[in-house]
Amino acid sequence: MLASLDLQALSKVLYSAVLSDVLDSLGYTEQAMRPFIRPLDDDTVAFGPARTGLFMPRHGHLEGENPYDIEIELIDDLRPGDVPVFACGGPIETITPWGELLTTAAVARGAVGFVTDGLVRDVRSIRKMNFPVFHGGIRPLDSAGRSKMMVRDTRVKCAGVTIEPGDLIFADIDGVVVLPSAVAAEAVEKALLKIEGENTTRKEILEGKKLADIYEKYGIL
Amino acid sequence: MLASLDLQALSKVLYSAVLSDVLDSLGYTEQAMRPFIRPLDDDTVAFGPARTGLFMPRHGHLEGENPYDIEIELIDDLRPGDVPVFACGGPIETITPWGELLTTAAVARGAVGFVTDGLVRDVRSIRKMNFPVFHGGIRPLDSAGRSKMMVRDTRVKCAGVTIEPGDLIFADIDGVVVLPSAVAAEAVEKALLKIEGENTTRKEILEGKKLADIYEKYGIL
Amino acid sequence: MLASLDLQALSKVLYSAVLSDVLDSLGYTEQAMRPFIRPLDDDTVAFGPARTGLFMPRHGHLEGENPYDIEIELIDDLRPGDVPVFACGGPIETITPWGELLTTAAVARGAVGFVTDGLVRDVRSIRKMNFPVFHGGIRPLDSAGRSKMMVRDTRVKCAGVTIEPGDLIFADIDGVVVLPSAVAAEAVEKALLKIEGENTTRKEILEGKKLADIYEKYGIL
Amino acid sequence: MLASLDLQALSKVLYSAVLSDVLDSLGYTEQAMRPFIRPLDDDTVAFGPARTGLFMPRHGHLEGENPYDIEIELIDDLRPGDVPVFACGGPIETITPWGELLTTAAVARGAVGFVTDGLVRDVRSIRKMNFPVFHGGIRPLDSAGRSKMMVRDTRVKCAGVTIEPGDLIFADIDGVVVLPSAVAAEAVEKALLKIEGENTTRKEILEGKKLADIYEKYGIL
Amino acid sequence: MLASLDLQALSKVLYSAVLSDVLDSLGYTEQAMRPFIRPLDDDTVAFGPARTGLFMPRHGHLEGENPYDIEIELIDDLRPGDVPVFACGGPIETITPWGELLTTAAVARGAVGFVTDGLVRDVRSIRKMNFPVFHGGIRPLDSAGRSKMMVRDTRVKCAGVTIEPGDLIFADIDGVVVLPSAVAAEAVEKALLKIEGENTTRKEILEGKKLADIYEKYGIL
Amino acid sequence: MLASLDLQALSKVLYSAVLSDVLDSLGYTEQAMRPFIRPLDDDTVAFGPARTGLFMPRHGHLEGENPYDIEIELIDDLRPGDVPVFACGGPIETITPWGELLTTAAVARGAVGFVTDGLVRDVRSIRKMNFPVFHGGIRPLDSAGRSKMMVRDTRVKCAGVTIEPGDLIFADIDGVVVLPSAVAAEAVEKALLKIEGENTTRKEILEGKKLADIYEKYGIL
Repeated sequence: MLASLDLQALSKVLYSAVLSDVLDSLGYTEQAMRPFIRPLDDDTVAFGPARTGLFMPRHGHLEGENPYDIEIELIDDLRPGDVPVFACGGPIETITPWGELLTTAAVARGAVGFVTDGLVRDVRSIRKMNFPVFHGGIRPLDSAGRSKMMVRDTRVKCAGVTIEPGDLIFADIDGVVVLPSAVAAEAVEKALLKIEGENTTRKEILEGKKLADIYEKYGIL
Repeated sequence: MLASLDLQALSKVLYSAVLSDVLDSLGYTEQAMRPFIRPLDDDTVAFGPARTGLFMPRHGHLEGENPYDIEIELIDDLRPGDVPVFACGGPIETITPWGELLTTAAVARGAVGFVTDGLVRDVRSIRKMNFPVFHGGIRPLDSAGRSKMMVRDTRVKCAGVTIEPGDLIFADIDGVVVLPSAVAAEAVEKALLKIEGENTTRKEILEGKKLADIYEKYGIL
Repeated sequence: MLASLDLQALSKVLYSAVLSDVLDSLGYTEQAMRPFIRPLDDDTVAFGPARTGLFMPRHGHLEGENPYDIEIELIDDLRPGDVPVFACGGPIETITPWGELLTTAAVARGAVGFVTDGLVRDVRSIRKMNFPVFHGGIRPLDSAGRSKMMVRDTRVKCAGVTIEPGDLIFADIDGVVVLPSAVAAEAVEKALLKIEGENTTRKEILEGKKLADIYEKYGIL
Repeated sequence: MLASLDLQALSKVLYSAVLSDVLDSLGYTEQAMRPFIRPLDDDTVAFGPARTGLFMPRHGHLEGENPYDIEIELIDDLRPGDVPVFACGGPIETITPWGELLTTAAVARGAVGFVTDGLVRDVRSIRKMNFPVFHGGIRPLDSAGRSKMMVRDTRVKCAGVTIEPGDLIFADIDGVVVLPSAVAAEAVEKALLKIEGENTTRKEILEGKKLADIYEKYGIL
Repeated sequence: MLASLDLQALSKVLYSAVLSDVLDSLGYTEQAMRPFIRPLDDDTVAFGPARTGLFMPRHGHLEGENPYDIEIELIDDLRPGDVPVFACGGPIETITPWGELLTTAAVARGAVGFVTDGLVRDVRSIRKMNFPVFHGGIRPLDSAGRSKMMVRDTRVKCAGVTIEPGDLIFADIDGVVVLPSAVAAEAVEKALLKIEGENTTRKEILEGKKLADIYEKYGIL
Repeated sequence: MLASLDLQALSKVLYSAVLSDVLDSLGYTEQAMRPFIRPLDDDTVAFGPARTGLFMPRHGHLEGENPYDIEIELIDDLRPGDVPVFACGGPIETITPWGELLTTAAVARGAVGFVTDGLVRDVRSIRKMNFPVFHGGIRPLDSAGRSKMMVRDTRVKCAGVTIEPGDLIFADIDGVVVLPSAVAAEAVEKALLKIEGENTTRKEILEGKKLADIYEKYGIL
C-alpha cells in the first residue's frame, strides 16, 4: 500500500504539522522529533522510508578495526527514495556521523534526505547539493575514533521517537515526523482531507469571523 | 502618555539593545528575555503593549472541555497594535501554542507581533505573512491535548522576565525587551537621546581614536 | 614559520573540518569548539592568531572602577590579522561582551574575526560590516555591571578548547578550530594535502563506486 | 480485583525493580519515573492508588483568588491508602507544593505516601513523621503566589510517566513505578513469582557458578 | 539593630521556610537559593552575616602569581559569627574553592558556616568538624590552576540570589535564605510571630479539622 | 611495579583529593570524574585496576540475540581486586547496567568496587553487601531491551575521564580519580609524601597562625 504512494509528489502538498495532527487522532502522539532537530536548509522537504543506523561513542580505534564497516554496508545498500536515519543518542556533542562524502554517496544512490540526532559537518558543500539534512547540531569533528555504527536496519530511538526500519519519515521546516508503516497510508489519506478543512477555516478567519464562532461551528481550530 | 507614542514609527528608529541599556540606568536590570527566544525572521521588529496568556501542560482532554476557550477570548479581543505574549514555562518542548491560523487571526485584528517561550509551527506560512514572531523553538505538534491557556491578561513570567498586561514589548533581532508601563515613556525618550550619543562615539572610533581616549572623554563606551 | 603563512589567502582554500581531521592525526583531538558556538553570518571565515581575554560575572560596579580598562587595552592593542577571543565560561546567558562599537574598533585595527562563548548584540549592525563573529548566543544586554574582563593575553578555555595567546583560530560555518602554535604550520601543510586526497575519493563516489571498494582501496573515507 | 489486594502487606515484599521488570514483560516499558525523583527517607516505601493534581506556575495572586481551593478539595477528600501525586512539570525549581502542614493533613486522612516532580520543604518535620515522600528537590519556598493546582483527579504526566487517577504507585529507594490499573493485579502476581525465581539465580551465583552457565540454564539474568 | 540579635540562639528556633515566607510578605521574593545547593550534613544550621568572595575560572597559573592572595585576606579577616559565601557562577563543575584546610581556618576564626555555588572536597574531614557547609557539589579537584578569587567583600550572585556583604545568611536542611540587611531584623521578628500562628493551624489539622474550614477561618494555610 | 603495591592497605590511608593534586602536579589534570558520580554509601572506598565495558542504548531485542553476552564474559573474567567500570555515555537516564545480581557475582569473584556513569538499582540489597558502588543515578529499570555492552576491556570515557583497561581507580566520598597506569606508582608515592606535608599545615592553622604567613612559609595551601 505504501509502495503505491508517490511520496515525492505527496511531499509537495503535505507538511509535518498536518501529519502530526492526524497521527494524534489515530492515537500516535509521540511521533514528532524533539525540536533540537533542525534542517540545514529551511526550504527542503524529505519524505521516504527510514533506513536506520545505531551509533555508539568510541574513544580511539581498536587494533585492525574498520570503523566504518556497518555504515558502509548501509550506505551502499540504499535504494532510491530511502531516508537514512542515524541515531546517536543525541543531543550529543561528539558524534558527527554525516558530511560531504556520505551526502555525495547517498545522492548517488537516490536517497531523498537524511536525519540524525547527532551532528553534521561540511555544511557549505551539503547545502550546495540541496540535499535535505535534518540534524542535531554542527561541528567539524571526524567520526572516526569518536563513534561507530554498531547495528543497522534495527529499531532505534532518535530525538524522542521510536523508529522501525521502513517507517516513513516526513521532514520539513517545522520538524521531523515518523509515520509507523502500519498506519502510514491511512495517515496520508486523512492528512489530505484535513488540509482541505483547514482551507475553509482559514478563509473564514480572513473574512474577519470570530474564532469563537468558527470553533462553535466546526468544533476544531 | 504611552497612548500618545507612535509605536510603529518608533519601532523604525529604536532597537532592543539601547532600550535595555536605558532600562538598566533606570534600575530595571531584568527586562531582556533569555537568549533562547529567537525571531522567526531576523528582519522583523515588534513594538506594542503585551496581551498575556498563561499556559499549563495537559495530557489529553477532559470530557466536554473546550481546550481553547480562554485563548479564543484573548485572540478575539486583540486590539490593533497589541502583542500577544504566551507564557508556557519554557524552554519547554511539548507546548506549541502558535501556528498559521492564530497568526492569520492576529493579523486580522491588527496585532503587530507575537512572543512565546513555548514553540511555534507552520513556520513557512507565518514567514510568508511577514508577521513578527519571537519563539522558544519549532515543532509540528498540535497544542490540543498537550496544553491549555488557563488565565489571560494576568501577570506572567516569560523567558525570565515578569510581564504585566500593558507593559510594552520591544522585539528585534537582538531579542525581546519588556518596558514596564510605569517607565515606558521615559525609557523611550532616554533611548532616543542615547542613540545620538552613540553616533558621536562611533564616529570617533571610525576616525581611529583609541578606545582609552574615548572612554576617558565621555565616560561611556 | 607561522608568520610566513598568508593566512587570508589560506582561509579561502582551507576549512575547519579538514583542519580538525589533521589535528586528530597529530594527536590533538580536543581542538574543535563545542557546537553551541555559531557564526553570525554563515558565509564568513576567520583565520588568525588568538588574542585572549578572560571575563568574570559582576553584579553592579565597584565605586570608581573602570569596568572596561583591561578590555580597552586589549582592543587598542589589536594588530592586523588578530582574532580576539573572549572567554566567558559559556554557555552563559548574562555576559554579552561584544557589540557594534567593539566591532567597529576591531575592524579599524585590522582584526579579521571574533570568537566568544558568551553572547553578542547589535547583530544587524555587525552583519552589515561583514565582520566574522562566532558566538554563544544573542541578547541585547549591556556588559557593564554584569561582567568584566579580568585578565588579557592569558591561557583561556573557550567552548571546551584550551587556547594560548597566539594559537591560530580557524572559524567557518562548521565551527571553530584552534591550531596550537607549535603544530599550526604542519597542520596547514597536511590539510592542503588531505584536500587533494578527498577530491579523488569524491570523484570515485560520484562515478558510482561502492564505498566498500573505495575504503578498501584508500583505507580512508 | 485491586481492592482485594492488601497493598500494605505487599509493600513489605515487593520492590520497584521487580515491578518494573514485570511491567516491561507486559509491554509497559515507560512506567518508571525519571531518576531525579528521590525519597526524603531511603527506608520508606509507598504503595497505593494515585490521587493526582496538576499545577501551573503563577506569578503573584489574582484579586480575591483562593490559591489553594482545588488543592484543599483534593487533600480533604483523601481516603486511607491513597498516594497523592502532584505534577508540576518538573524538574522545576520554583514550585514547592508540599510541606509539613500538608503532610500532617495527609497523615490524618490515612494517605500512605506522596509523590511530586516539584519541590518539597519542611524536610526535618516530614522526616520526623516518617511519611514516605518522593520529590524532585528541596527548597524553602512558599507555593502561594508561585503556583496553583488547576485540576485534580485528572490524567497527569509526572517525571516522564503518564498517570491516571487510580493507577497504583509503588515507590521505594530505587524510584517510583506506576502500575496502570488495568494490569496492576496481574503485575503484582507476576512480580511475586519473579521474586522466587531470582532467589534461585542468586543462590547459584553465591555458590560460585559462572553467569554464562546460569544464563544458559535459565535464559534470564 | 542586627548587632543586638543573638543569631546563634535564634538559629535554634527559626528555619529557612518561615524566613522565606516572611521575606515574601515584605516583597522580597527572590531570596531562597536554587535547590542545587545542599548541606553536607542535614542536621547543621548556619546563621550569620555574609562575607562574600567572587571567583573566576583560571586555566593554569600566571608566572609569579599568588593564586590565593585575595582569598587568604578574606579568611584571615573573618570575625566570629561570619558566614563566608564563595560565588563561583555555579552550578559549575571545575571550581572547588573549599576543603579541609579552609574549614579548619574558618573554625579557628569563629565562622559559623560556609556557602558556595561551587564544589567542595575533603567531605569526610569537614563532616567530622561538624561545620555547616552548603555547596553545589562534591569533587576532589584542587582550586589552584582552575580558579581564583578575584574580588572580596563585594556584591555577588550565588545560586540565583544577589548578596551584599553583611546580608544575613540562614541555611538549614531546606536550603539557604538571604536576609537583606535593611529588613533582616524585621524579618526575624515577623518569623517568630508566624511560627506561633503555624502551631495553631497544625493543632487543628491534627484534631482532624478540614483544611477548607481552617483556610476559611484563618485565611492562611 | 603496580603489582607490588598493596592497594587495599593503601586505600585506608590515601584519599581522592590528594591523588588528584598529585596527578595535577604530574601534568594529568583531567583525572577526576564529573561530580554527578556519587557513592551509594559515603563510607566506602574502592582502589583497584579498571575493567572497562562500553554500553550502547538499545530499543528492544534483536531476534535470538543474547543481550548479556559480552557483559557476562567480563564479569566471569573478573580477578580479585578488579574494579569494573561501565561507561554508558552518562549522565543518561535509561541505562541501568548494575544491580544486586551483578554485585553478588562481582563480590564472589573478589572485585573491590564498581563505577558507572549510568544508573544502578537494587540499592537496598547492594548497601547490605557493603560493596563500593559509584554511580550516575538510581532507577528501577532493567537493562535488557534498553542497552547492551558492545565492547569490553577497551578504552572508554566515563564521566569526563578517559580510562584504559588497567588504569587504577580510586573512589571515595569526594569522587572518583583515575590513575593512568604509567604514573600510578609514582602518584601513590608522592601522595603519601603530600599527606605528611598537609599535617604540618593543618597543625599551624589549628595553632591560630594566619594563612598569609603559612602560605609565605610553605608556598602551598
